[in-house]
Amino acid sequence: MSLDDTDPLTQFRERFAPSPGLVAYLDGNSLGRPLTASLDNLARVAREEWAGRLIRGWDEIWLDEPVRLGDELGRIALGAAAGQTTIGDSTTVLIYKLVRAALALRPGRDELVVHRDDFPTDRYVLEGIAAETGATLRWIDAGDVTPDAVAGVIGERTAVVVLSAIAYRSGALADAPAITDLAHEAGAVMLWDLCHSAGVLPTALDDWGVDLAVGCGYKYLNGGPGAPAFAYVASVHQERFRQPIQGWLGSAAPFEMGQGYEPAPGIRRVLSGTPSIIGMATLAPALALLDEAGVDAVRAKSIALTEHAIALADELLPDARLATPRDPARRGSHITLDHPRFAEIMPRLWERGVIPDFRRPDGIRLGLSPLSTSFAEVEAGVEAIAEELA
Amino acid sequence: MSLDDTDPLTQFRERFAPSPGLVAYLDGNSLGRPLTASLDNLARVAREEWAGRLIRGWDEIWLDEPVRLGDELGRIALGAAAGQTTIGDSTTVLIYKLVRAALALRPGRDELVVHRDDFPTDRYVLEGIAAETGATLRWIDAGDVTPDAVAGVIGERTAVVVLSAIAYRSGALADAPAITDLAHEAGAVMLWDLCHSAGVLPTALDDWGVDLAVGCGYKYLNGGPGAPAFAYVASVHQERFRQPIQGWLGSAAPFEMGQGYEPAPGIRRVLSGTPSIIGMATLAPALALLDEAGVDAVRAKSIALTEHAIALADELLPDARLATPRDPARRGSHITLDHPRFAEIMPRLWERGVIPDFRRPDGIRLGLSPLSTSFAEVEAGVEAIAEELA
Repeated sequence: MSLDDTDPLTQFRERFAPSPGLVAYLDGNSLGRPLTASLDNLARVAREEWAGRLIRGWDEIWLDEPVRLGDELGRIALGAAAGQTTIGDSTTVLIYKLVRAALALRPGRDELVVHRDDFPTDRYVLEGIAAETGATLRWIDAGDVTPDAVAGVIGERTAVVVLSAIAYRSGALADAPAITDLAHEAGAVMLWDLCHSAGVLPTALDDWGVDLAVGCGYKYLNGGPGAPAFAYVASVHQERFRQPIQGWLGSAAPFEMGQGYEPAPGIRRVLSGTPSIIGMATLAPALALLDEAGVDAVRAKSIALTEHAIALADELLPDARLATPRDPARRGSHITLDHPRFAEIMPRLWERGVIPDFRRPDGIRLGLSPLSTSFAEVEAGVEAIAEELA
Repeated sequence: MSLDDTDPLTQFRERFAPSPGLVAYLDGNSLGRPLTASLDNLARVAREEWAGRLIRGWDEIWLDEPVRLGDELGRIALGAAAGQTTIGDSTTVLIYKLVRAALALRPGRDELVVHRDDFPTDRYVLEGIAAETGATLRWIDAGDVTPDAVAGVIGERTAVVVLSAIAYRSGALADAPAITDLAHEAGAVMLWDLCHSAGVLPTALDDWGVDLAVGCGYKYLNGGPGAPAFAYVASVHQERFRQPIQGWLGSAAPFEMGQGYEPAPGIRRVLSGTPSIIGMATLAPALALLDEAGVDAVRAKSIALTEHAIALADELLPDARLATPRDPARRGSHITLDHPRFAEIMPRLWERGVIPDFRRPDGIRLGLSPLSTSFAEVEAGVEAIAEELA
C-alpha cells in the first residue's frame, strides 16, 4: 500500500487538467494547476456570458461577482462571514490600497511593521508608502515571524503590522492569532498577507479578530496566471475605510455616473476599476472543489506531504539544509532545501518534468498542493534531485 | 445594394462569435464582442500554456507579454513606437499611477485640469489624488473638450491635464494634438484617456508629443469584461517616471527578490503586481484583426456608421435630441440621443435583442464598432427605438 492508496483526497487529483510530460509538479504554491472544470467554466463564461449576454452580463451576472465569489472564499477558506471579502486587483495593488486605508484608520501613528524576509512586493509597496506618506518602516530583520519578534518592534507609534501568515521562502507559519492580539494591544491595525496560506491552512479571520487581509488567487486557489487577488476588510472597519484609488466600481452608485465620489457601502468600496470577469471564471470551480474537500482535510494531507518530503530529503539529500521548521505545526505547505549546487541542477530537473521552484541564493522550494499533488510526485521529485546531484 | 454590400470591412463581421437572439448590438464601445479567435486563444492559453507549461510559462512566455502586447497595440492603434506601451491593471488603477507619477514630474505645480463631464472614474480618481496630495482640481465645467476650454483653466500652476480623447457620453472628439500643445506651452504634462478611441480612431501619440495615455481593453479592443487596460509613457519621461504602487513585477530584477525596490528600466516600471495572462489571451487576436483591417479603414466605416445613424434618427426619431456633434470630424464612433421616454423603453429594446446603452438622465447611446457592427444593425436599432416610442 502506498501513501497515495490510503490518501482520502487522492480522487481529487483526477479533477485537474492533464499536463503532458509532467512527472512531478512541486510548485503549486507559485502557480496552481488548473481544474478541468475551470477550463470548462472559462470557455463557458466567455461563450455564454460574454458572447451570449454581452453588456447585459453586467446587470444579470457580473456586477456582484467580486463580492459573491469573495463571500464564497471567505466561507470556505478564510473563516470570514459574508460581506467582508472581495475579489479585486492584484495582491500588490490591494496591499497598497489596504495599507493606505489602514494608515488613515490610525491618525497620529506613523510606523509600519514589516519583515526583511517577506515577499518582495510586500516590502516594496511598503517602502513606496513610507516614501510618500512620511511613515517609518520598522523592520523585523531576521528569523521567523514570531510574537517575540513582533513585540520587539511594535509600539505606540505603530499604525499597521503587515506580515505573511506563511513565509514565502522558508514556509514557516506565523502564530496569527497571537500576533493579531499583540498588534491590537499596541493599538495597531493587523494586515495578514495570506498568499501562501489561503486554501491550504485553516484560517479564522473573524475569530482571530483580524482587521485586514489580502491574498493571491493563483497559488493554492488555482485561478491561473495573473488571476485576481482578494481582500478582506473586517466589518467593524468598513464604515471608516477609505482607500486611495477612487474608482467608479467602488462608488455608491456606479451607473448614476454622478458628481463626487461616494464610496459604496460595505466591502465594495475596496474595488476601483472594472474587475476581471474572465479572470474570476477559473476561481469559482476551484473554490467549489476546496469546499467539497474541506480545508481541514487539505491541511491534514498538507502535513503528511511535507512530512514525507522532509523524511525523503533527510534520507536522500543528506547534504542539503532544511530551511523550513521540522515541527509540522509551525510550517505551511511548502518546504525549502538549500544546497550550493541546486542552481546548477534546476534546468535539468525542469527538462525531465520535475518542477520545483528555485529561491535565491541556493534553495529548491517544494510546494505541495494537497488537492493535486500525490505522494508519488514527492518521491519522484526528491529522487530526481538526488540523482541530479549525484 | 445595401450599405453592407459595399462595405469593404463587411467580411470581418464573420470573425465574431455568435450571440443567439441578437438583433442589433449597439454597445461595442462599452463591451466589445468576442472574436471566435479570441475564444479559441483563451482556451489554448489555458490548456497549452497554463496546464501545459505551468510555472515554466513565466520563463518561456508570460513575463514579457504585457510589453510585447503593449508594443503591438502601440504600433497598430496608438502611433507609439516600441517600448512605451504596456498592458497593466484596470484603467482606474493606471490613471491613479500615471497621474501620481506625473505630479512628481512637475514639482512645485499643484493643479490638475479635469472636465466635469468626463467619465466618473477619471473624476473620482483625481478627486482622491487631490485629497491626498493637496493638489487643486481645475474643472472645465461644461461643453466639449476644446482648446479654448482648456486655455481657460490652464496656467503656470498646472501640473497635469487629464482629458478623454472622445467623450464617453456625447461622443465629441477632442483636438488632441492642439490641446497637447497647449498643455506643453503651459509647462504641464498631458495625459489622454483613450478608452473610447483606442482601436477606432487614428492616433499618433508619438507625433502629437503626448506624455502619458491610458485606455481600456474591453471596448473597441474587444478584450472581454474586465480585460486589462493599457498605459503609454513617452520614452522621454521614463527615466524619471516613478509610480506609487511599487510591486515586484515592476522592479528591475523580480526574481532576485532582493532588498530595496529599484524600478525596472523602461515601460516595465508601470507594472506593479502579476498581470493577468488569462486576460491578455483575448486581446491578442483582436489586435491582430485590427492590424489586418487597419485603423484608417475602421475610422472610415465608423464615420459612415455614425452618419447613417444620425440620418436615420433625423428621419425616424424627430423628437429626440442629438447630443453628439454633427460634424463627423468632431465625433468618435458612438452617438447619443436624448428623449424623456428613453429610460422607459430600454428594457423592451433589450428584450427584443436590440442592445444600445442608456446614459442618464435620458440618453440612448449607440456605440458602433466598425469591425463587428453592420449598417443593417444600425437600421434595425433605430427602427426598434422608433417603434417602441410609437
